[in-house]
Amino acid sequence: MSAISPALGNLRIDIDRLMRRLTELGRIGALEGGGVCRLALTDEDRQGRDLVVGWMRELGLEVTVDRIGNVLGIRQGKENGRPVTTGSHIDTVATGGLYDGNLGVLAGLEVISVLNDAGIETRRPVAVGFFTNEEGARFQPDMMGSGVNQGALDIEEMLSVEGIDGSRVADDLRAIGYAGDAAVGEFHAHCFIELHVEQGPLMEEDGVTIGAVTGVQGISWTEYRIAGVSNHAGTTPMRLRHDAGYVAAAIAVEARALAAEFGGDQVATVGVTELKPNLVNVIANKALVTVDLRNTDEELLARAEIHMADFVRKTAAREGVTVKERKLARFAPVNFAPEMIDLVESTAKALGHPVRRMPSGAGHDAQMFAPNCPTAMIFVPSKDGISHNIREHTNAADIQAGANVLLQTILHQAA
Amino acid sequence: MSAISPALGNLRIDIDRLMRRLTELGRIGALEGGGVCRLALTDEDRQGRDLVVGWMRELGLEVTVDRIGNVLGIRQGKENGRPVTTGSHIDTVATGGLYDGNLGVLAGLEVISVLNDAGIETRRPVAVGFFTNEEGARFQPDMMGSGVNQGALDIEEMLSVEGIDGSRVADDLRAIGYAGDAAVGEFHAHCFIELHVEQGPLMEEDGVTIGAVTGVQGISWTEYRIAGVSNHAGTTPMRLRHDAGYVAAAIAVEARALAAEFGGDQVATVGVTELKPNLVNVIANKALVTVDLRNTDEELLARAEIHMADFVRKTAAREGVTVKERKLARFAPVNFAPEMIDLVESTAKALGHPVRRMPSGAGHDAQMFAPNCPTAMIFVPSKDGISHNIREHTNAADIQAGANVLLQTILHQAA
Repeated sequence: MSAISPALGNLRIDIDRLMRRLTELGRIGALEGGGVCRLALTDEDRQGRDLVVGWMRELGLEVTVDRIGNVLGIRQGKENGRPVTTGSHIDTVATGGLYDGNLGVLAGLEVISVLNDAGIETRRPVAVGFFTNEEGARFQPDMMGSGVNQGALDIEEMLSVEGIDGSRVADDLRAIGYAGDAAVGEFHAHCFIELHVEQGPLMEEDGVTIGAVTGVQGISWTEYRIAGVSNHAGTTPMRLRHDAGYVAAAIAVEARALAAEFGGDQVATVGVTELKPNLVNVIANKALVTVDLRNTDEELLARAEIHMADFVRKTAAREGVTVKERKLARFAPVNFAPEMIDLVESTAKALGHPVRRMPSGAGHDAQMFAPNCPTAMIFVPSKDGISHNIREHTNAADIQAGANVLLQTILHQAA
Repeated sequence: MSAISPALGNLRIDIDRLMRRLTELGRIGALEGGGVCRLALTDEDRQGRDLVVGWMRELGLEVTVDRIGNVLGIRQGKENGRPVTTGSHIDTVATGGLYDGNLGVLAGLEVISVLNDAGIETRRPVAVGFFTNEEGARFQPDMMGSGVNQGALDIEEMLSVEGIDGSRVADDLRAIGYAGDAAVGEFHAHCFIELHVEQGPLMEEDGVTIGAVTGVQGISWTEYRIAGVSNHAGTTPMRLRHDAGYVAAAIAVEARALAAEFGGDQVATVGVTELKPNLVNVIANKALVTVDLRNTDEELLARAEIHMADFVRKTAAREGVTVKERKLARFAPVNFAPEMIDLVESTAKALGHPVRRMPSGAGHDAQMFAPNCPTAMIFVPSKDGISHNIREHTNAADIQAGANVLLQTILHQAA
């Protein structure tokens, strides 16, 4: 595949303009120390959306907002038809960084700026979108907007989701002015390409600049609510205990053992543990834990889920506690289109950037497009692998490389 | 030993009067569902203190308040000298019951009532006390008042202790009007006998009414603050994790394994676990756990502490996290005086109550007296072994039996 067209192959993005936009968007919801908190559908999200929509309009894009608040800006081509689409999200976790999501959206706008400046009319339309509530930090599930837009999630069900603070998606969409009227499930992309930070340490470790993402790990989130009997830590013999806290800890230790046993891509994380009454000398009668399992192989992921469920059932029975299990999220592994992965890889090579193929450990909006159109992602390195943290950072040189790969990939598909 | 004196052996406590006082005191800080919240040095504690001091004065006791707020009511005897002393505490945990502590104080007042009604002048003085902050729920350490009174804890250090809500012992003592002027370390008891609920399930399981307590398990409370690196649960390979939450869970599971390995009296409890940021898909960078270890044997307890410290050090090194260890409390096991244990046992038998010798799994004010005078405790059963819980309950018949053993034991020592 010849990745770089002879006519347009010399076009490059303007890294200063892109960094200016990243910095300006990062000021909204800025945290002390450098991070940002712009939780989905809050007033900070509204301010961020207004800023980006303003830029879209300045760039001459036709802006539409759909019923779940996704925003698409379209630049018409010579032919009518499905746009070559890029984008990501601008919501963040509570202690987020400047790049996660925002980079993909603003690199898309940078591509539009380059096309405008060069006076290029592409054959196909080019679209840049940002999708509501990718993070799932305030409302679950994550990837809500792209999921609804691409038909994987039901609009009515998602509009009535209640957030961690008791607010409802539909109400908050209206409150921030982004309850749009574009129908969902009717946007069809010619292809979808998303630039994103890796959010992991592998690229830095390997010394590569570009990741040609092969797909997204399957994700399984399970919550376990354990109910035992609260009692005195000194006077209750071990054999008579029904310790919810012990079962919670045993689940976390077993999750780690499972990851070691399965090996390969398998990861397992217990990020949430809460005990009640949470006192030094009182056996906990209530415990809450979550288990996050991920694997690129659906069969292995399903086996990991069964392994944990069996362990929880047996441990609960032995301890004499009850456990309520609830699935918080479940996404099967996603495989991106081979020709699109090839295109990203060959474009990176043509531009002189070290590249590796790799799966994504995190969920992304791109995975919602993958069943409906040829889809790919471009990764750039995260310093120290850190993300969802105010210390999240990606070098400007790497951002420039990734955005140029995005530009040339889009040109290849649209020109 | 002849436990029951011929002249006074027929005296019995008035269970209705005792239950009335228990119920009336239980109204102060009453919780929905039957329990009580009367945390040390709060306004509820003040109200409870005022009520009990009022009863002491009605009964003709000379009331003194020492610098740490301990209240002693003394009934003079024919001879001057060290009083035969009983008592306990009236502070509770946040979700406490009616009996824990309160029973020992009010049974002491019931003994005084019996002596008054019968017009008996004992040879030795008889004292009833309640001691500040036995529970350690709001200010640590527990058994603060009795510890200071009997010289095990330093008065100035304890007065400057800060509570979980940031308040200071000295300030709160003044605020509730119980910063007394009696010097601490100067009260000498002839002997000390405390009636208390078992707070465990063993007596009910054995079908006995009276426990002749042989001593108190040694207690070791350690807090571990673990610092790792927060990172993305999907994109961070297992081998690159520094997961504070995993180390916390491993500590809790190891504590359980230790109790099984040591066997005997050894108990181990992780009642507190807190993770930060406590999110499903973020590896925790901070974790807090507490380990509560108890054993009747000092050598075994010390070995258990070393075992846990070794495990924590090794696990932290392997995971690449740092751990700050802090001792929250440490009491060596206490052995009560053999002649006092015999006296409780023989008195219970003489009164026709099934009795067993047993250690206490919980700390009690009595242990602070044990180094300074012959000391013993009388246990009565806790329904379902439950304590530190609004469901805490002891049958009136068992309370009656325990209070009569207390009465006759005191008469034996004082008459």
